[in-house]
Amino acid sequence: MSQPIDIAVIGATGIVGETLVQILEERDFPVGNLHLLASSESAGSSVLFRNKNVRVREVDEFDFSKVKLAFFAAGPAITLSYAARAHAAGCSLVDLSGALPADQAPQVVPEANTDVLAGLKVPFQVCSPSPSATTLAVVLAPLLDLVDLQYVHVTASLAVSAQGREAVAELARQTTELLNMRPLEPTFFDRQMAFNLLAQVGTPDAHGHTLLEKRLVRELRQVLAKPSLKISATCVQAPVFFGDSFSVTLQSTNAVDLEQVNAALEDAEGIELVEAGDYPTAVGDAVGQDVVYVGRVRSGVDEPSELNLWLTSDNVRKGAALNAVQVAELLIKDLL
Amino acid sequence: MSQPIDIAVIGATGIVGETLVQILEERDFPVGNLHLLASSESAGSSVLFRNKNVRVREVDEFDFSKVKLAFFAAGPAITLSYAARAHAAGCSLVDLSGALPADQAPQVVPEANTDVLAGLKVPFQVCSPSPSATTLAVVLAPLLDLVDLQYVHVTASLAVSAQGREAVAELARQTTELLNMRPLEPTFFDRQMAFNLLAQVGTPDAHGHTLLEKRLVRELRQVLAKPSLKISATCVQAPVFFGDSFSVTLQSTNAVDLEQVNAALEDAEGIELVEAGDYPTAVGDAVGQDVVYVGRVRSGVDEPSELNLWLTSDNVRKGAALNAVQVAELLIKDLL
Repeated sequence: MSQPIDIAVIGATGIVGETLVQILEERDFPVGNLHLLASSESAGSSVLFRNKNVRVREVDEFDFSKVKLAFFAAGPAITLSYAARAHAAGCSLVDLSGALPADQAPQVVPEANTDVLAGLKVPFQVCSPSPSATTLAVVLAPLLDLVDLQYVHVTASLAVSAQGREAVAELARQTTELLNMRPLEPTFFDRQMAFNLLAQVGTPDAHGHTLLEKRLVRELRQVLAKPSLKISATCVQAPVFFGDSFSVTLQSTNAVDLEQVNAALEDAEGIELVEAGDYPTAVGDAVGQDVVYVGRVRSGVDEPSELNLWLTSDNVRKGAALNAVQVAELLIKDLL
Repeated sequence: MSQPIDIAVIGATGIVGETLVQILEERDFPVGNLHLLASSESAGSSVLFRNKNVRVREVDEFDFSKVKLAFFAAGPAITLSYAARAHAAGCSLVDLSGALPADQAPQVVPEANTDVLAGLKVPFQVCSPSPSATTLAVVLAPLLDLVDLQYVHVTASLAVSAQGREAVAELARQTTELLNMRPLEPTFFDRQMAFNLLAQVGTPDAHGHTLLEKRLVRELRQVLAKPSLKISATCVQAPVFFGDSFSVTLQSTNAVDLEQVNAALEDAEGIELVEAGDYPTAVGDAVGQDVVYVGRVRSGVDEPSELNLWLTSDNVRKGAALNAVQVAELLIKDLL
């Protein structure tokens, strides 16, 4: 094990933050002192790490010069409030909130664009992209040499856990109410989420696009280093607790060689390709796993330049906490 | 009311067949004698029509010369077995199974292509397309003059009711088992359907395409009279009892005028356009309704030649039974 590094996790009481702490332990990340931080409402509780309960403290009172590395796993407002303070104190950071501008902090997916890490200076700022962009980048990166990519079409069916514990609890509550023929009273979601699909996650801008959809487009272009790649994105809320699913259509200029595509996916890091004829599901395959599952690899019904894929990934692990830790692993040596 | 016509409904005990009988009554279709037919397993039960229980009889024993019109609302095997016999007996038919070849029986969606009915001779054979093709045709037909359509990308999230009563019962049963922490034992579906998405509905062919996906492409091209339109299609099984949802991206050669698109959708028959910023859902809007709901009308994140839409429709009504009855209404005068 490398020399231990003192670390802070901001947003430690959330689903992603708690999983991130777990993953640091699972992967033997060289953690020295671990400081768990949260907003004042969540401070005071504790999270288990290496068989000890670590008390969660208020981020507002934290002295960032105590740590060399901080994971920001809370919302964008928290990152915007504290990232500069951490940076000024000499603390490097991995942000999961999407708040930092691209020119200050590159989006990184280890399977796709480790090259952007080369020029970083400590204290660095890097971002782990949204779960959708991360999942797509893992799968599209190994195909870039095979497919002359013109357009990417994505419909992402997202798990409610991305919206936190309240959303998970509400899906369970709504489902129970409906099965017991009781009247439905939505609280977290503004309408029936159980046995239904919500076509919009978050409030759209004046043009009808949600922040998640804009992040997907912007971050995927950045990670693939294709700033003008055409991407259509629709992010949908599915009645699924954990695990995101992606229906993806790629357009190429030429006929796609499916044998080569399958071979590239088979060989690629971070991907599990399921057998032809079968398909992966969020619940049955992706949840709890570190890889992105890929299935239904096929061309168009009669269009050989079209490539269709079905992807599933654990939105909390590879989509967020795991990717952030993997990025940090690549940077450990710079922090020693 | 027009002069009554003697009618047969084949598959009368299924979800679509039973709804079709209801719709004949709701819309005051000029029904004389109503003969309800099913396979030998389902014969013997009865279905309510105009406050009377009508006994369901075996299709194998039916004399098709007794009726002028038959709705085939059972599976493709039943249509293939009995359509020729009905035709030979002088009985016209509306098929919902997708079994009849396009050169024998045109696919018809009243909002899109009534022109194909002009040349028909009694006894005619017409088809009501799959729920997906019907829904898409209703919405795309009024846009053809505005959008120079190059490519249509569809991810269809389909309700389990399209697979019949057993599928509906299994989604309820699986959900209850999971909420009660009991072990899951899938029977109808081959894996967990509750709180999950299944990327494939039915068995794929050697190229990975399912029958539903091939029907969507073939039937939509036919109804829109665009035989070489490029269409990518992915049909997914969602944990939803009733109501299909469609994430649709259209590519045009030119920038799409969203104001014109909204105006055309607002004016079109069979469509309910929801307010900008809002979106329709299967359960909250489409189920039990006769129209296709449209929302999330928007261009690409920075691509003005892209048009994105979200559609929901009642897969049993407009997707199947209602469309079939609407087609028949246009042909009544030919049968008198």
